[in-house]
Amino acid sequence: MRTSIATVSLSGSLTEKLTAAARAGFDGVEIFENDLLASPLAPEEIRARCADLGLSIDLYQPMRDVEAVPEDEFARTLRRARHKFELMGRLGADTVLVCSSVSPLAEDDDALAAEQLARLADLAGDFGVRVAYEALAWGRHVSTYDHAWHIVETAGHPALGTCLDSFHILSRSSDPKDLKGIADIPGEKIFFLQLADAPLLGMDVLQWSRHHRCFPGQGGFDVTGLVHRILHTGYSGPLSLEVFNDVFRQAEAGPTAVDARRSLLVLQEELGRLGHELGEEQGVAALPAPAAPTAVAFAELVTPDAEPVSALLGALGFARTARHRGKPVELWEQGEARVLVNTGPAARRDGTTLAALGLECPDPAATARRAEALLAPVLPRRRAAEDAPLDAVAAPDGTELFLCATNRPGLPNWRADFEDVPHTPAAADGLRIDHVALTQPWHHFDEAVLFHRGVLGLEPRESVDVPDPYGLLRSRAVTGPGGGVRFPLTVGAAPGDDTAQARHIALAADDVVAAARRFTAAGGRLLPIPANYYDDLAARFEFADGELETYRALGILYDRDTHGVFRHCYTHTVGRVFFELVQRDGGYQGYGAANAPVRLAAQRAQR
Amino acid sequence: MRTSIATVSLSGSLTEKLTAAARAGFDGVEIFENDLLASPLAPEEIRARCADLGLSIDLYQPMRDVEAVPEDEFARTLRRARHKFELMGRLGADTVLVCSSVSPLAEDDDALAAEQLARLADLAGDFGVRVAYEALAWGRHVSTYDHAWHIVETAGHPALGTCLDSFHILSRSSDPKDLKGIADIPGEKIFFLQLADAPLLGMDVLQWSRHHRCFPGQGGFDVTGLVHRILHTGYSGPLSLEVFNDVFRQAEAGPTAVDARRSLLVLQEELGRLGHELGEEQGVAALPAPAAPTAVAFAELVTPDAEPVSALLGALGFARTARHRGKPVELWEQGEARVLVNTGPAARRDGTTLAALGLECPDPAATARRAEALLAPVLPRRRAAEDAPLDAVAAPDGTELFLCATNRPGLPNWRADFEDVPHTPAAADGLRIDHVALTQPWHHFDEAVLFHRGVLGLEPRESVDVPDPYGLLRSRAVTGPGGGVRFPLTVGAAPGDDTAQARHIALAADDVVAAARRFTAAGGRLLPIPANYYDDLAARFEFADGELETYRALGILYDRDTHGVFRHCYTHTVGRVFFELVQRDGGYQGYGAANAPVRLAAQRAQR
Repeated sequence: MRTSIATVSLSGSLTEKLTAAARAGFDGVEIFENDLLASPLAPEEIRARCADLGLSIDLYQPMRDVEAVPEDEFARTLRRARHKFELMGRLGADTVLVCSSVSPLAEDDDALAAEQLARLADLAGDFGVRVAYEALAWGRHVSTYDHAWHIVETAGHPALGTCLDSFHILSRSSDPKDLKGIADIPGEKIFFLQLADAPLLGMDVLQWSRHHRCFPGQGGFDVTGLVHRILHTGYSGPLSLEVFNDVFRQAEAGPTAVDARRSLLVLQEELGRLGHELGEEQGVAALPAPAAPTAVAFAELVTPDAEPVSALLGALGFARTARHRGKPVELWEQGEARVLVNTGPAARRDGTTLAALGLECPDPAATARRAEALLAPVLPRRRAAEDAPLDAVAAPDGTELFLCATNRPGLPNWRADFEDVPHTPAAADGLRIDHVALTQPWHHFDEAVLFHRGVLGLEPRESVDVPDPYGLLRSRAVTGPGGGVRFPLTVGAAPGDDTAQARHIALAADDVVAAARRFTAAGGRLLPIPANYYDDLAARFEFADGELETYRALGILYDRDTHGVFRHCYTHTVGRVFFELVQRDGGYQGYGAANAPVRLAAQRAQR
Repeated sequence: MRTSIATVSLSGSLTEKLTAAARAGFDGVEIFENDLLASPLAPEEIRARCADLGLSIDLYQPMRDVEAVPEDEFARTLRRARHKFELMGRLGADTVLVCSSVSPLAEDDDALAAEQLARLADLAGDFGVRVAYEALAWGRHVSTYDHAWHIVETAGHPALGTCLDSFHILSRSSDPKDLKGIADIPGEKIFFLQLADAPLLGMDVLQWSRHHRCFPGQGGFDVTGLVHRILHTGYSGPLSLEVFNDVFRQAEAGPTAVDARRSLLVLQEELGRLGHELGEEQGVAALPAPAAPTAVAFAELVTPDAEPVSALLGALGFARTARHRGKPVELWEQGEARVLVNTGPAARRDGTTLAALGLECPDPAATARRAEALLAPVLPRRRAAEDAPLDAVAAPDGTELFLCATNRPGLPNWRADFEDVPHTPAAADGLRIDHVALTQPWHHFDEAVLFHRGVLGLEPRESVDVPDPYGLLRSRAVTGPGGGVRFPLTVGAAPGDDTAQARHIALAADDVVAAARRFTAAGGRLLPIPANYYDDLAARFEFADGELETYRALGILYDRDTHGVFRHCYTHTVGRVFFELVQRDGGYQGYGAANAPVRLAAQRAQR
């Protein structure tokens, strides 16, 4: 099963796009006409560049407003087409995309459309070119795949087939009864298959298509189910991504191409499970299903100055229990929560950062193989000979993810690399890591969601907008089974906005009030929350005597959902990291998003 | 006629918002509940701050999901309401907004809704509070203003009235027959009027409302017409802006508040023309109608190094004809085009910039008065005693706009401040300034359009998206009568993106080919355009013998619209400025947007 990507899906010049597509492992590209026009390379040079990169040119696109027009207009179209077919010869591309017409000149006349498309195909045939006719979801008279196929069938020309596009099909309907017509199309008459996903937005379909497409698995369409149907027809051409997206247009082409290719690998894996032959991608299908991590084994802070971090951890009741045998890394523990403090060479001038996470994996080596197969950058092991072998990959945001086991027999044990040090016992709040809030760089939000889902098997939750005083943040959590791993992913309101650059580690306590009191008694500073917030709580909920006053005195925020209650408070920030103390009761599922505006405003006010 | 603004329309903390609203001249504010909750100020302190700033608190908002619910739910609502009414007493706010319910608990029962709202109004009355009930466009059972009014009328309670909101009304329908019910509402029962405009987008109304509202005159609604109808009912409360907008959330509060207030001044001016009494704003209504500038008298480049600019102007056939009597400013002319080159203290390190424009105004002093009344910052006159008095204002993007007359009897003449210098005559391409492309800072695009329309009387044209290799640019031209002044305004794909930071001056020539040849013969460098572009032109259009080869050799781009033909080419860039040579034939109206992607890619490739 070959994979391809349309150049319009990537940012930059044509050569940047081609290079990125090849590096990410695509087999071919669709050349978008505007990218060719803007390129200083002659078609022959583009052809040679693609050949050097190992890329085929699977499609030249698009031709528009071709069919069912008055004869004089069609004559001009044939003239234009002849130029394009010659160009395709120079380029070495043998399939051209024709989109259904949006021209006011087009008539609602299927017979005329079929007749003119057949004439176009006749001309194309002379140049060894095949014409793939596609229904745009907003086509003037032809807007559904079955209507386009009906016209292609009527034309009955060997050089004319149809092109299916998951966006155009699924944006109109995902009702199985609307999709069953796909089975009527002979696979060899499907000349091309373009794939895009999209979030389920209620908006004008043209704007939706031009600005909000995304890669399969990043949106709300069942792209896999659609491809499953299409492969049943016998279609054997490439799976090709065509994604118009405002963010991808701005992002660097390299990471976007990797994200794109990963989306297809995940799709192919799903197809393999549905019984499709994947050819050389069989390896992907043969991978073990993702086994999601069950817990955060540790969070690693990198800092140029351990003192403020140590003070904060100490106030939280952590004890410094061990240190690494060969590196300047200390282990702090309270209850089941573990934090590593690394003052080694990775420490950067911009202060304390949350740089790595240890993920407790059922089978770390299998997860590492899976991650590598899904294009996650594998990090070099910088370890001494005596250290436990520990695989690590980089998440799209640069966070190092250590795939590990903690004190589990028969598996390399990262904990054994640390030797215990004498220490006063930790406090007994029974802390464990509830969630880790991972802020994301502006261009990598959808990529992060796909990564955590596809590579680690975490499940994406609903996306929410959170108002910060200076803009809207977008937040979406990915979670593991049983809530053992929870990562709310958040992206700021604008690139360069540092609102969301501080990350935080949320520690669950059995009694958050007790934990908060211990923290302040130990000299910790909790984020002060305005009195107005508590007056509003009093209006919204009924509390036991003194309960609200306790929250007010400490700065504890309060939320309820249909399951239960959430109480939480925030420490001051060190560098780019702060902690949250939380208590989840009764199966509360969220992260206190209702309180986020107040928290964000309070943090702004602290600066 | 009092003016007000909802705090949610502005960015920042509550105190930043209040300060910005007061500085921009608003009489009052609506306090958005979340802004209060997040504020460290007690309600009494907020009240005092507003009083100090001369702001009344015209509305507290919102209460949600109040009406037509089961009795036990309504009991909780009354409990919550009592807290809010007490809070409003501390705040000194006497009107509360109640939005129509979106709760799944709400019943489709107008009688129940009226009965419960009357009970809420009873309680409100005890606290001296009035309840303004508003139909959200997406309300569960109540989504139109006339339905909300019907319920208010049924309730028949003196402390219960309705709130009208231009977004909720016009997003559903602007059909006059749907609006005529407004005349049936007694003005004294309209307790509040919220105004917002919005671009005409085909999308889910909730998302449209939450992210894309804008100030009146910036979108596609006839807000003035609606307010005209509402004032006829006898409504005498404030005109209050409530705008949810992703960009305004991020922008600085100060300029946004000025933009907001300007939108209301322009609206009030329009209302004055429709015969409404405006009270103390009568001064605005009495201003002369905007008299749009008829031409660009000059463009002023500020540069730390005149040499590259002089070389470029020289190659374009300009002659250095005069210099300022007292400042290091030179005048360059060719045909009717004038460019000032200023090497004075305003020159900044970041190189050559287009810093100012002279606008040939029918009555410069009247335009200056109008600009000042519409809150345009008036620039201090830095001139010697003998210089002509020249008014200047700053556009939102910081460009200095000199409102001037050139050699017109009876008016101060800026040209007289320059003394002629000996020079070789300019070339005779008959250049004139066709348009000046003004790139805009990220947060100020809608503000710029309103400024040029409201202050200068220029007319906004259609907004277009232009693909740059690294993102989509948004572009919208504002033009004067007869095309004497044309400013395409462009905003980049992202804040911090420098794609669109270079501005350019387009010079119209009678014969662009001759002008381009002269330029290259004089050593100028035209932007090279890829051969693929010309191959595509050959496919799209038919040309006379040799015509296309001429364009290809020089790098001239070609476009057609229904009126005529446009030929244009670009010089190299100096600092942040370049020039375009254009030839408009047959009444062509555009700016060659179809060619912009190729031009932008070629400029990227030059860097």
